[in-house]
Amino acid sequence: MRQAGRYLPEYRALRQKHTLLELCHTPDLAAAITLQPIRRFAVDAAILFADILLPFEPLGLGLSFAAGEGPQIARPLRDAAAVRALPALDPEESLGDVLAAARLVAAELPPHVPLIGFAGAPFTLASYAIEGGPSKSFVRTKSLMHQTPDTWHLLLDRFADLTGRYLAAQARAGARALQLFDSWAGYLSPAEYRDYVLPHSRKALALAAAAGGGGGVPVIHFGTGTGPFLEDFAAAGGDVVGVDWRVPLDAAWRRLRNGQAIQGNLDPAALLAPREVLRRQVREVLDLAGGRPGHVFNLGHGIVPETPPDAVAFVVELVHGG
Amino acid sequence: MRQAGRYLPEYRALRQKHTLLELCHTPDLAAAITLQPIRRFAVDAAILFADILLPFEPLGLGLSFAAGEGPQIARPLRDAAAVRALPALDPEESLGDVLAAARLVAAELPPHVPLIGFAGAPFTLASYAIEGGPSKSFVRTKSLMHQTPDTWHLLLDRFADLTGRYLAAQARAGARALQLFDSWAGYLSPAEYRDYVLPHSRKALALAAAAGGGGGVPVIHFGTGTGPFLEDFAAAGGDVVGVDWRVPLDAAWRRLRNGQAIQGNLDPAALLAPREVLRRQVREVLDLAGGRPGHVFNLGHGIVPETPPDAVAFVVELVHGG
Repeated sequence: MRQAGRYLPEYRALRQKHTLLELCHTPDLAAAITLQPIRRFAVDAAILFADILLPFEPLGLGLSFAAGEGPQIARPLRDAAAVRALPALDPEESLGDVLAAARLVAAELPPHVPLIGFAGAPFTLASYAIEGGPSKSFVRTKSLMHQTPDTWHLLLDRFADLTGRYLAAQARAGARALQLFDSWAGYLSPAEYRDYVLPHSRKALALAAAAGGGGGVPVIHFGTGTGPFLEDFAAAGGDVVGVDWRVPLDAAWRRLRNGQAIQGNLDPAALLAPREVLRRQVREVLDLAGGRPGHVFNLGHGIVPETPPDAVAFVVELVHGG
Repeated sequence: MRQAGRYLPEYRALRQKHTLLELCHTPDLAAAITLQPIRRFAVDAAILFADILLPFEPLGLGLSFAAGEGPQIARPLRDAAAVRALPALDPEESLGDVLAAARLVAAELPPHVPLIGFAGAPFTLASYAIEGGPSKSFVRTKSLMHQTPDTWHLLLDRFADLTGRYLAAQARAGARALQLFDSWAGYLSPAEYRDYVLPHSRKALALAAAAGGGGGVPVIHFGTGTGPFLEDFAAAGGDVVGVDWRVPLDAAWRRLRNGQAIQGNLDPAALLAPREVLRRQVREVLDLAGGRPGHVFNLGHGIVPETPPDAVAFVVELVHGG
């Protein structure tokens, strides 16, 4: 569950004084925002306050957030020359503010509440970098994929390397779980995922997993709309596979590789429903998970700004109450 | 395939002189636009130029299209009173311009090229009417669904009735196939589709099918992202079930009820790929359909404006060539 965010009045108060990027670049503030939901709710983990597109700044792509418009990328990547010109980055230096925030949070959290670090998956990063912002059709992305596959694979390999090492750096900074977000993977056909994306996600996940030194830091592989190719999505890696609310949890779980845990999958819209409907939907997620170990209860996608905070408290209590 | 549209220079020329709504309300122009792709390509059918939200105008919701922003609804429906206040419409009168355009096209088309009429499905119409425009999270829609299910079912029943009778009227005006568009169904969970949407789509499809007087006018039931609940989607009805590019056609077909045909499912983005990639993807769709009768070749979703017209000609030739 993305716990920090626009649904909390204490976050909105901070946001009135600072831009999103200012908050991300001020470790004290990013740490304070990360801790906001921990102070309010009895949640089991904290998720770092950051944005998956932050690596675009040191890459020189020109990142900004226009009010209500989502991210804008001033210098999108659209040819081989632009991809080859990308600088090689050391996340410890170029994403130092995020790592500093992680260190502050890790020092602050009670021992039973782990910090989850996260980063964007190669495909999702590439789609923003190529489109220049949010997209509904991903036409530029798919054009580059099909027209210049060499450039495509070069770009995704660069992102896989950067994002994998960035996750590993977050683990060194104190994150005790890591999450790779492939938010837009569901716009791919099963064949496109397998041929153009899977190998790069696998690389990123392997680099992240290596940070744990053999089991210390579990990695969550999250995507939405991955139902049509969940087996391949899971095969890319992750100790835990995140699924959105579209696939019933029992059906999803049957399709996972042996040993992979599952995360999900309450519809974020359920938090706006009346209590009895919310209770039924939470109960359904828990029932479909079957009480098996290896289920991480979570929303199926990001929390929406209109969410009443007491609905979140209600869900946390319900899940803990069993 | 949505054949008319922004990818054709002859359409863009007309669009510079008229708003989208002006074109829809001028039967001569709407008919001319419908015929544009027929004059250019050897396609097997024509699809009427219109917009699924046109019924919002006589319903008094205040429809407009802001440049680059999609549809805007001035008076969204958000409570029982607003739903109950909706006027009962006779499509013959209140959507007369569309029907007049259909009559002009039907008179103009060569006999071997049928006209396809279309309308929005109850859920997709409701989501626009409730949200007031395009949405990414459908939070207002799902809130109304869960908080006031009576109002929800009343609204969807009204839309089912209107859209079903509107489709039937298009058949009487000369359409020889009808298509119900549930563009956003994929944002629902399987349980939500079954409980809150399926009965209303079934009603709309039954009203449309009744127009054929027992088999004359086939009905296509189209949705995107319906993979997780394709059986229920198909059970709602339709002689043909449309699937997007996310589900391989052979897998989709195995899940259909006996006797239903299938429509799909080339990724619209493939039309921007190099010829050999496009050829391979078309070939794959045809191979997965297995040459069985009852396959309607089409894109998996709307054509994108950046599509080069000669790529469309290439696909038509390829499909006809076998």
